[in-house]
Order: sequence, then C-alpha cells, then structure tokens
Amino acid sequence: MKKIFLIVLDGLGDRPNDELKGRTALQAAYRPNMNRLTREGQGGMMHPVSPGYRTGSDTSHLSLLGYDPEKFYTGRGPFEAMGLGMTVLGGDVAFRANFSTVDQDGVVLDRRAGRITEGTDKLAQSLSFSVDGVEFFVKAGVEHRGALVMRGKGLSDLITDSDPHEAGQKVHEVKALDEKAKFTAEVLNKYLSIARKRLREHEVNLQREKEGKAPANELLIRGAGQAPSLTPFHELFGMKAASISGIPMITGICRLVGMESINVEGATGRLDSNFRAKFEAAYKTLEKFDFLIMNIKATDVAGHDGDPVAKRDAIQRIDAAMKDIDHILGDTVICITGDHSTPCTMMDHSGDPLPILFNTHGIRKDNAVLFDEISCTKGTYHINSGDVMKILLQLSDRAEKYGA
Amino acid sequence: MKKIFLIVLDGLGDRPNDELKGRTALQAAYRPNMNRLTREGQGGMMHPVSPGYRTGSDTSHLSLLGYDPEKFYTGRGPFEAMGLGMTVLGGDVAFRANFSTVDQDGVVLDRRAGRITEGTDKLAQSLSFSVDGVEFFVKAGVEHRGALVMRGKGLSDLITDSDPHEAGQKVHEVKALDEKAKFTAEVLNKYLSIARKRLREHEVNLQREKEGKAPANELLIRGAGQAPSLTPFHELFGMKAASISGIPMITGICRLVGMESINVEGATGRLDSNFRAKFEAAYKTLEKFDFLIMNIKATDVAGHDGDPVAKRDAIQRIDAAMKDIDHILGDTVICITGDHSTPCTMMDHSGDPLPILFNTHGIRKDNAVLFDEISCTKGTYHINSGDVMKILLQLSDRAEKYGA
Repeated sequence: MKKIFLIVLDGLGDRPNDELKGRTALQAAYRPNMNRLTREGQGGMMHPVSPGYRTGSDTSHLSLLGYDPEKFYTGRGPFEAMGLGMTVLGGDVAFRANFSTVDQDGVVLDRRAGRITEGTDKLAQSLSFSVDGVEFFVKAGVEHRGALVMRGKGLSDLITDSDPHEAGQKVHEVKALDEKAKFTAEVLNKYLSIARKRLREHEVNLQREKEGKAPANELLIRGAGQAPSLTPFHELFGMKAASISGIPMITGICRLVGMESINVEGATGRLDSNFRAKFEAAYKTLEKFDFLIMNIKATDVAGHDGDPVAKRDAIQRIDAAMKDIDHILGDTVICITGDHSTPCTMMDHSGDPLPILFNTHGIRKDNAVLFDEISCTKGTYHINSGDVMKILLQLSDRAEKYGA
Repeated sequence: MKKIFLIVLDGLGDRPNDELKGRTALQAAYRPNMNRLTREGQGGMMHPVSPGYRTGSDTSHLSLLGYDPEKFYTGRGPFEAMGLGMTVLGGDVAFRANFSTVDQDGVVLDRRAGRITEGTDKLAQSLSFSVDGVEFFVKAGVEHRGALVMRGKGLSDLITDSDPHEAGQKVHEVKALDEKAKFTAEVLNKYLSIARKRLREHEVNLQREKEGKAPANELLIRGAGQAPSLTPFHELFGMKAASISGIPMITGICRLVGMESINVEGATGRLDSNFRAKFEAAYKTLEKFDFLIMNIKATDVAGHDGDPVAKRDAIQRIDAAMKDIDHILGDTVICITGDHSTPCTMMDHSGDPLPILFNTHGIRKDNAVLFDEISCTKGTYHINSGDVMKILLQLSDRAEKYGA
C-alpha cells in the first residue's frame, strides 16, 4: 500500500486572458515539474461536484475528500465559523453574526454598527460563556462580522434568526421551527439577553458612545447550521491523515473529519506564502501519515484579484517549490488539482472543469502531456470531484475489491 | 449575465454511410460556421439522458431543458397530444386514441375503422365537450389516430384503457386502479357513452355506411398519462424563455414549462423549412428574451428517411443560415447539439452520443476543432443531456455559488 499526497491549488482553473496572449494562467506558466508528472503519469478533467456546478471552497473540499456535500453541507454558518479559525465539532450549531447598533427598544439602527473596525475582538471575548450547560463561542471577523458557535447536547439548527435583516425593525426573538429545537431556541434567547447586557456595559462601547460613535450593542445572528457529524476520515478510508493549509476554513473542514493539521512557518494562505516550506513540511508529514491534503491558496487569491500575471507567477513558484517531488513517487500517489476554477476574467469562482494529474511508480501513461485545462482533456479521466478519493485508493493499492 | 441560445438539430447524430464514403452526415457536410464555433470554443460529447439511452424527442428535450425525464416523463399520452398541437397543461390527463369500428354489442370489428383517412377532423370536433365540470378535447391525427385530453380538478391517470387492444373483444369499461381515480373513471365512462352516441349519429359515419365503409363509431383510448406539473422554466432558472420549433410536440413541451413560443413564417419542421428565417427570428427573439431554444427537425426527418445525402444537405443549409451568428457571441452563450442520434442506416433513433459545442466571448478553447461525432470526442465535455443547463448557466454567469 502506498501513501497519498493530494495537492489542491485553490481556484486553479482559469479562462483565456488577454494579458497572457489568450492563455490561461496555467498554460502561460513555466511548470516543468507539473508537466513532467502529467506526461509520465495520467491526466484528466474534473468537475467540482458535477458538470456546471459553481462551488465554494467548502463544498468542493468536502467533495474532494469523499464527503458528498449534497448530503453533508449544512449551510454557511459552520463553515464561516471555521473560516474564522474557530473549532467546530460535529453537532455544534453555528451562525454568521453581525455586531450591530440597536436603540433602547431593541430596534435596529445600524446592522453594521457604523462598520466598526476596532475593539470587536474584545467584545467577542466577553461573549464566550456557558448557559444551562451549553457553551457559546464568539469570534470577530472583518469589520462588523463574526460568528457564533453553540456546543452542547441536543442542539438543533431548526431555529429562526435574531437578525431582522433590515434596519428599523426590532431584533427578533429566536423561535424553534419544530418541537426538538425548543431547547436550542430557549437557551439561545437566554444567552442573547445576557450578551446584550454585557455589550451595553462593555468598555469598548462606553468609549464609542463617548466619541459619538454607534455602539456595537447587539449581536445579530443568522443562518443557523449544524455542523455535520461526519464519519472520521481514518475510519472511512483506513488512513492516518493530515492537512497543511494556510486558510482556516480548509483546516477546519480537515479537523472536522478528524485529520491532524500541520502548521507550517511562513504558510500564509496568501501570494507571499512560503511554498518551499510547505513542500518540505509535506514530505516530512508523509513519513508519519498515510494521507496528506495540502491546500495552496495563492492561485485563488490572484484569480479573485483578477491578476493573471500574479496567478501565472504563483503557479511558477509553486512548480519550482516541488522540483524534487519525484523522490516520493516510489511509495506515494501524487495528485494535483484544484477545488474549483477562479478565472481572472471573472474575479470569482466559475463552474469550469479543472485539470487533474495522478502519478506514482508503475502508473499508466496517457495522452495528457501538459498540466493545463486543454491538454488534460486528452487524459484518462473525465470525472467529478467525488470520484477522486476512490481513484486515489485504487492507485495506492488500498481499494477493497467489490465482488470476488 | 449573458443570454443563452440553445440550438437543437433534431436527430443530429449519425453513423457511417456508404453513400458518404463511410462518413456521418455531419462529417460529410460543408459546415464552416459550426466548425469555427467549435474550434474557437469548446466541444464535447453528450449522451441523451445517460450513456446508451435510446431516447425519444420528448424525453431528450425534457432532459436538455433540465427536467429529469425519470422524474417527469409520464408516458406517451400527454406528449402525443402535444404532438398533435393540442394544449396540454400540468394536471391534464391525456390518451392516445383510435377511431375504430364496433358492432351493436360493442365488440370491436376494426381497431382502425378501415384506416379511415377523411372526416376524422369533423368527428373530433363533435367529441370536444364538457361532462360534470371536466373538459374533454379530441384532435385527429394521421389516419385513424388521435388524442384525447381531459382537463379538470382531481383527475388521475391510474385508470385502465377502453381499448381492448385487439378486434373481436368488447370495448372495455374504464376502471379506476385506486380510490382517488374513481371520479376520473366515472366521468370518462359517462363521456365515452355520450361520445359513442354522437359518433353513431354523425354525418361522416352515416355517409361512410351509405358508401359501404366501416364507420368510425367508437373512440378507443389507451395509455392514460397525467401531464406533469413542472416548475416553470423562468422560476427554475430565472430567465425569460422562448422557443422556436416547427414541430408541435417540442412547442408543447416548451409551453408546458411556461416558455413563449415564437411562430416563424416558413418554419415547417420538414426538410424544406426556411432555416434563414428561423435564425433571423432567433436573433430578434434574443433581444427580448434571456433564453431561446430552437429546434430544427430536418436532420431527424432525413435520418428517418434513411437518406444521408438529404441529411448532409440539410446540415449544409442550416450551417449557411447561421453565417452571421458570431455577432451575438459578445453577450450570448451559444450551444449547438441534438436531442438524440437518428442514423440514416437505422432509420430510427439510436442511443449513440452526440457532438455538442459551446461558444461565447472569453470561453476556453479546447482540442475539438470540427463539429462532428469524432472530433468533438477531443473536447472538454463528456456529459449527459441533464448537465447541459448547468453548464449553460455557469458559462453565462448565471450560476448561483454552491457554498462559499
């Protein structure tokens, strides 16, 4: 049995760019290592989830790891919370949250508390406490944004928002949408009432009022989602698994399925990330683990920025950083792909399919010779992201026989 | 967001023809416009419904439009009725019908009333009336054939045929197959009894009897099917949609999902159709609509005729008619494919996959360079017809993001 190294270049897929003479960032990049791995191995095209789906990184990573998002994706709440670096466990109920301003009668004056930029960390700290055996965790994000996580027994996400979704309306009481959610709604309303009091008396808000600024005196919550209780990855696939990622949401998903997350010094999740350090850490990690997923975010960042030159350059630096990757091919199956396309011309995710390559000693070589969106259509595979784990298992001699 | 123009060349796919030196009709056709759209865009192969399915035009058009026929196809009744140009609404129950001859005891003498060719229009007119709040509509087709549509509240298709399916047997009473269908069976039997009387007394039949011909004195019905209540296309996809088609069944399906049908002078659904007029009408329609599906039937007609030269020539004339199609590529996604293959050597539908092309400004270009059954295998897509709408939505920047 071999080990598996799944490299996810976030938002890898592209469309033709005028700045690159009509080529995609990947086609334009000097990428001798990715090309060699393709030429001497197998290529193909992969649709995130299925053809035409325009996926987020959350749904597409779940799918890549073998967890069908149609079954397990429970809305943005838990994944936004993971994105802020919060721990989210199966069964937790999580919400997107706004620090907002309300008047004395609870009428929302500003859903964004004057787009508050400072002090929300401190406010969030004061909002992490327990009520009736349920733990509440709040973390601040960019500006007025944040997330709330509830952890305890018998929770449900079948509850309404406290957020009225527009100014001029009163903050809503949270209501249960079925009998089983009554406890969750009750304890949450109790929590919000205590939270309200704490926010009003908080030094950050007293100071803001002194300065004539809108106080962040209400935490509006919306989009309740219960984190799925997923069969741990090592149980599902019989592999000791780890993740390397510079972005909290991906780390969060990998933790949710029980993977160990490996911290790499200099891995920032940005264009300036230390790719070399990530690959070094990956090789070391593979000595101790059977499976490693490594996400590199830089390609997606450049795509969102609409900067094809930066995307091309990121790919070149990633390629250079994997120059000695062949030394693990003897006992490892390497797979390189993305989670979705982020075309620079679109500055957002698209539903275009992605190139994928597989390599290991002894693998069939096919007609895909370059690693890009065009050459890989000549390869062996025309698959959906949900097929990848099964292919990796069989290439690594780990697949159980179906039948006799 | 871009508009979408889906061109369906009916029965497009072919197999090698001796008359064309072993080429398919598409390979043999001079088709510079289809080839350019392929070369400068994306190609692929599409299976109607899924690999190996040998579909009708009804099931394949439902699938192409994003309505899974496995869920929504309710048998031939409603689609045959649409094929005769009858209006069929969701909830209507429709039947295939035969004008037939019975004796005084109701024993079927001839299921086809001597293959009656004249007067069935008049007979049908006399059979369109209401009973107990249920409207009945009959339309005559070719020879003894026709269709019956029932419209009213609380109808069900869980009923038996009145057609005994062979001569020498008595006309069956219609029976309910479950409790909920009792009303339908009752009102239908009442209707058939009145219809019987009207047919016997009808001048057309009195005349036939004078001439010693078999009277068409019984309407035998079979294959009850309830038209599915489909979510309107504009609700499902958020697009104002229209159809151009020379064949009533396709128009009927498009109407069933709430599309507007555009009439084009000279569009006959035959080999002599005015393709140029259809494309002109299409460009005008696209100024007012977000989505247009245009069916061209000529290719299928030639396939059924087993005439590869006529099929090739039809493709050549269709290609010539789209010579200035590129002017809409800036704000429109164009897709050309078929609904199924109708190989001339088979003179019927086959389950062979079909070429498909996508083009719009900014799209990836792939290795498919010619629009035919062989070159398009080098393209990006290896899909089923049910994937087409999702791909069109994402290429036109209309796809909602799944996840974050």
